[in-house]
Formats: sequence, C-alpha cells, structure tokens
Amino acid sequence: MSVDRKRLIIDAASKSFSLFGYKATTMDQVAKIANVGKGTIYTFFSNKEELLSEIINSLIKEMKAAAEKTIQKELSFYENATLAIYELLEYRKQHQLTIKLFQEEREIGTPAVKEMIEKVEAAIVNYIKEKVVEAIEKGEIKQCDPEITAFIMLKMYISLIFDWEKNHEPLDKDKISELFKFYLFTGLSM
Amino acid sequence: MSVDRKRLIIDAASKSFSLFGYKATTMDQVAKIANVGKGTIYTFFSNKEELLSEIINSLIKEMKAAAEKTIQKELSFYENATLAIYELLEYRKQHQLTIKLFQEEREIGTPAVKEMIEKVEAAIVNYIKEKVVEAIEKGEIKQCDPEITAFIMLKMYISLIFDWEKNHEPLDKDKISELFKFYLFTGLSM
Repeated sequence: MSVDRKRLIIDAASKSFSLFGYKATTMDQVAKIANVGKGTIYTFFSNKEELLSEIINSLIKEMKAAAEKTIQKELSFYENATLAIYELLEYRKQHQLTIKLFQEEREIGTPAVKEMIEKVEAAIVNYIKEKVVEAIEKGEIKQCDPEITAFIMLKMYISLIFDWEKNHEPLDKDKISELFKFYLFTGLSM
Repeated sequence: MSVDRKRLIIDAASKSFSLFGYKATTMDQVAKIANVGKGTIYTFFSNKEELLSEIINSLIKEMKAAAEKTIQKELSFYENATLAIYELLEYRKQHQLTIKLFQEEREIGTPAVKEMIEKVEAAIVNYIKEKVVEAIEKGEIKQCDPEITAFIMLKMYISLIFDWEKNHEPLDKDKISELFKFYLFTGLSM
C-alpha cells in the first residue's frame, strides 16, 4: 500500500518536472497530480530536491540498462564504446525529463538542476570508465588513465553529435562512429 | 584627424563593453567615454553591433598574431598545435572583453554577443585548419578532413582545460599537452 503511494508520488513529480520544470513544480502540484495529501509526500520525501534525486537515480539506472543492452561480446571495445555512448546520449536527448531539465539549466540555471545534470554526466563517465578498465585489462587498448579516457570519449562524442551540428551539416551515425575511431583509436600520427 | 576620432570611439566602446557588457552599453555612453558627440559615432558606425563587430575583428587578428608567435619551425605539428591552441585559449581567457562577453552570453544570452563568440570560435577553428592542411601536405599527419580535425583539436583542448576542472583537480600545461598527444595523435589502439 505505502509502496504504491510512494510510486504514485514519484510518477507525479516526474510528470510535473517534465512538463513544468523543477523550479516551477511545487509540492502542492505533485500532491494534486498524485491525488494524495501533501502530508503524505513528506512521509516519503522531506523536500523537492529529494524527489528529484530519487527520480534521477532511477533515470541513471535505466540509462545504464539501455547502454548495457547494446553491448555485444563479439565486437571490439571501440565498436561497443560507440554503441553504448550513442545510446546514452540518445536516451538523454529523447527523454522528456532530461530535455526539460537541460532547458531549465540553460535558461534559468537552477542550482539543484545543475547539480543533477552533473550527476547524470558523472554517472555516464563512470559507466564508460568501468568499460575502459576492462579493455585495458584485456589488452584491447593501451595503458591510460581510465577516468580521463572515459571523460575524453564522452566529450568527443558530444562534440561530434551536438557541437558540430550547431554550425555544420549534422554527421550521420556511421560517420560519427568512424571519426570517433579515427581520432581516438587510430590517431593522427603517421 | 578623422582616423583618430574613429580610434577614440573604438577604444571607448571596447572599454564600455569590457566593463558593462554589450547589452548595458549605450551609444550615449560610448560618446561620453570617447568625448565626442553622438552624431560623430554615427558617421563611422551605424549601430552598436557594427562597433562590436569591428572590435571582434581586431581581437581575432591579435589572437592569430599571438598564436603565430608561439610557432617554432623546428617543432613537430603536434607540439606547435599544442602551443598555439593553448595561447589562443589563454588569450580568450585573460582578455577583459572576452571574459565579459562570455559572462553575458551565459547569464543573459544576448543574441549579438552569442554571434560574436561563435565568430571568434570559427576564426580559431579556421586558423587551426590552415595548419592542419599544411601538416597533411608535409606528410606530418594522416589524411583527414581538415575542418573536422581542427574542430576536434579545439574541442579536446577545451575539454581538458575547462571542462575537466569543473569536477577535478586542474591538469597542468605539460600534462594537457601529453594527453592531447596521446589521445589525438598516438591513439588508444594497441
């Protein structure tokens, strides 16, 4: 019973954050959407930030699960990395909640939202880092700092997908994958 | 005589943009700082945007000259690229006008400012692109798309300098140069 009410509250908050953003959402609104008393919310979450945090933690789990599904044992590290990062960024891009939160961060700069976005990015870097460590151990890539490598992989992908298309024709998925391999794995040196 | 007055106006506008930002600067203010009549300004510039554009064009020339000075014939392409990009970013970081404009873009998002910042970034990419073309011709690096390569080089540098230090200990100049070489030139592949 109480689990169901908690679920109702989380779903209501998620809906409200996705539609109106974090700042514009009130506990009253969440109570109304969830069809519970405001007091009930406080038995589970002491404030709005805790609600957002719970929702973001679930989102991170879902993103990891989505990335994990794309990984295929028979592919190389670079191929799997491409597939997984693409999936993570697509997820972030298509999810109504993350779209709204990114917009809010850009336009209002709400501190709690900024923090959550950083948390999502840190989780993505951490996920890639685990894969980098495995690839080093298996001798698939050179010895390197796994955290910096994961960070650079993500940043390069973001540059090729989002930053490039601000001033150029967008690159297609295969081209991005090819460039990712060329710059980060093959290298420019003769 | 008229050239001197034009110079006075440009310097005054540059001072005002650096101190108060683009949006908060008025032609009246520029006239006051330059100690000329407002009508005089309009004999040279038809609006505030033209003034900013003139100033940004000079800034780009100065940045290129500063980068050009760091280049040493006896060094490799990667070493020169590191030196020049570092110089360009330092310039952008330490210049009072660019600091103020970046702040204004972040906080207010003034369209004319956004456009100018994009112009500066495009000029940096173009400058690096010329060097990439030379390096390909000399056989110093592999065949590649010079524009994407220049863009990726700049983005990787920005990631290593600015983005990394948002959540980590800053990397020192030598470490950045080493990582830049490792990821982009040597590559992760065994």
